[in-house]
Amino acid sequence: MGSDNKSIFFEPRTSVEQIEEGTSLAPKFNNDGLIPVTTSEWGSGIVLMMGFMNNDALILTIESGFAHYWSRSRKKIWKKGETSGMYQTVKDLRIDDDQDAVWMQVELAGDQASCHVGYKSCFYRAIPIGKGPVKLEFKETEKVFDPEATYGDLPNPTKL
Amino acid sequence: MGSDNKSIFFEPRTSVEQIEEGTSLAPKFNNDGLIPVTTSEWGSGIVLMMGFMNNDALILTIESGFAHYWSRSRKKIWKKGETSGMYQTVKDLRIDDDQDAVWMQVELAGDQASCHVGYKSCFYRAIPIGKGPVKLEFKETEKVFDPEATYGDLPNPTKL
Repeated sequence: MGSDNKSIFFEPRTSVEQIEEGTSLAPKFNNDGLIPVTTSEWGSGIVLMMGFMNNDALILTIESGFAHYWSRSRKKIWKKGETSGMYQTVKDLRIDDDQDAVWMQVELAGDQASCHVGYKSCFYRAIPIGKGPVKLEFKETEKVFDPEATYGDLPNPTKL
Repeated sequence: MGSDNKSIFFEPRTSVEQIEEGTSLAPKFNNDGLIPVTTSEWGSGIVLMMGFMNNDALILTIESGFAHYWSRSRKKIWKKGETSGMYQTVKDLRIDDDQDAVWMQVELAGDQASCHVGYKSCFYRAIPIGKGPVKLEFKETEKVFDPEATYGDLPNPTKL
């Protein structure tokens, strides 16, 4: 997918002042061409997921108002919800001080969830603070949807 | 800094079920030995920053209840606040489904801010949704603290 006919262009990074204090969008993609994205639910502030965008996924998100990510497991741009119906409508899109990270606040569609395991948030387990040994605590105790019914035989994106 | 005499140990990653549905902490660090961390303010849900932890920074955070990161610019573990006084007390620490990302909710100390530029959050600028050209919008209009008074001659971590 190319960037032809798009109205969004990124500026070159010319100075720290431009990057930190300016109004031009000059994102820094990492060595894999990706920028990390934190997605939280508009209103509740629950962090739903952390993902990555490449150049085109960021442009598509800005132009369409729907969250697009780069899928590292499938190596393609991924409009969130295209399989599950759980689209993410962007209510607020932010870039950080040095423009190498994105924060996106979204409204959820469909089952009002985001995580392929079936929970609302991918961050459904807590790490207790203090001395170990660590035993993770489930903060969401019931799945919101049935992953098998939603995703069928699609490969699980989690890798060892 | 080694992991000697620490009570926190990470488990080997043996199966998708263990990683997604289990109670053992088996984080996946990237090729640089880092795991991305989203830090939001306890209560408000404002995302303050995105950073990275290495193995020891994660252990120190769990054991102490104070946010520790890996500084990529200084190449050392960094207890947030050690220079500025803006320590972060961890109220809730989460790991995601495939255990390759961390979400931390914190209470702020000192100036109640987090960003070295002087704003509360590093995400003080919004990218407007829709057709370009893009002009970033400042969502925080006043700095919370004076970076020069706080950091003096320390090098700016922002890189081109």
